[in-house]
Amino acid sequence: MLSNNNTKFIKSLQLKKFRQKERLFIVEGEKNTVELLHSSYKIHSLIISTKFSEKYSGLLKQKSAPITISDEKTISKLGTYQTNEMALAVVEEPSPSEYNNSGFQLILDDIRDPGNLGTIIRIADWYGIKNIICSETTSEFYNPKVISASMGSVFRLNFFRYNLVEFLEKNKNIKVYGALMEGENVHKVKFDKNGFLIIGNESHGINDALLPFITEKVTIPRIGQAESLNAAMATAIICDNVFRDN
Amino acid sequence: MLSNNNTKFIKSLQLKKFRQKERLFIVEGEKNTVELLHSSYKIHSLIISTKFSEKYSGLLKQKSAPITISDEKTISKLGTYQTNEMALAVVEEPSPSEYNNSGFQLILDDIRDPGNLGTIIRIADWYGIKNIICSETTSEFYNPKVISASMGSVFRLNFFRYNLVEFLEKNKNIKVYGALMEGENVHKVKFDKNGFLIIGNESHGINDALLPFITEKVTIPRIGQAESLNAAMATAIICDNVFRDN
Repeated sequence: MLSNNNTKFIKSLQLKKFRQKERLFIVEGEKNTVELLHSSYKIHSLIISTKFSEKYSGLLKQKSAPITISDEKTISKLGTYQTNEMALAVVEEPSPSEYNNSGFQLILDDIRDPGNLGTIIRIADWYGIKNIICSETTSEFYNPKVISASMGSVFRLNFFRYNLVEFLEKNKNIKVYGALMEGENVHKVKFDKNGFLIIGNESHGINDALLPFITEKVTIPRIGQAESLNAAMATAIICDNVFRDN
Repeated sequence: MLSNNNTKFIKSLQLKKFRQKERLFIVEGEKNTVELLHSSYKIHSLIISTKFSEKYSGLLKQKSAPITISDEKTISKLGTYQTNEMALAVVEEPSPSEYNNSGFQLILDDIRDPGNLGTIIRIADWYGIKNIICSETTSEFYNPKVISASMGSVFRLNFFRYNLVEFLEKNKNIKVYGALMEGENVHKVKFDKNGFLIIGNESHGINDALLPFITEKVTIPRIGQAESLNAAMATAIICDNVFRDN
């Protein structure tokens, strides 16, 4: 059984300030916890139902993490999901890994909505992108909404948080694609599979300070009347064009 | 000034049962209200700030709707946005229009999340799709979250709510595309610009009863490891493939 203090401690991780202080975050639900168990992330503690422990007994044996068996009501109460009858994990935030330039990479300039960030992570993982480089103003990676929207993809990618102007200054030899209104039709662009794609803020687009670094402006052709596409949709469409054969 | 009764009445429209009883819904914020004013939707009443009334005086003159000038605090309180310093409209739900088969159309099978539905509407509008046909279980069109996520696109599309099996029975001469795991690579499909695209439920995909109607299974190639893409992302990627020249 969880002590009152433990319960309080885990619930505090719903708040950014406690996540940052403790360098711990929570992972909720069956799908995300299973993906976590498959990853190299270090688990601080696991609170799971009997159902989860039976269904994933083999997987659980491979990870050394303190396990508490609990009921649906208690597990749900610890996290942000309305109901969670399976599992909640408290996970150690990994130390920032050293940046290793490889393959097509996303640069997120001030993506503020955690749901959008999680969805972009899921898209990146679908297309086999390994690195996501974020501005200092982009939403926190380990916000529960990011984890939830990423559907477990968050555990397969590398995240870097940099001053983007300095980062781009250092990587001037790499092609930089940016989604802008007056660019080349994304259907015609021959993408370099080692390029960067900059995705701008949901309301204001790409920051002016980054525009000089863009070597190829790309545009998704519009046929109808919507004024814009949201950041995650634009990412999905552009990535699909990067990773196509014809 | 708004009476207490009026305030109570408008706030009640945040709930589905009152929207359905009154056949009225609310539109919030600058962007959505401006798109509404450009549309043929009938406005029951408008609650706007002095700022909005000055900025859009010309546009407001073209619509005959009772206007109340109010302050930011009052406007925000009436709706679901945390802050809204511009406008809130109470709008009449249009009578269902007669179905008119034209162009590429989306069939939504049990899309439950209003944010997803709104995003799909925005994508459809970007690609010039006019008709969205929904299952009876798909989220309500005039939920505030749908309106908000659609960014005004909701006013430019036609919505139909049918029993999808009966609908597809009646339209057997039209090609039906469905996103499924074992379909043809979406990059290779030559789409018929008068086809239907079925998008399935967020968790369970396309209903078994609809599968026999699919004439072309399509698949978005996956390079990485994410198990799936969400319904709105899949719609965006497939539509981009439908409406490309090469």
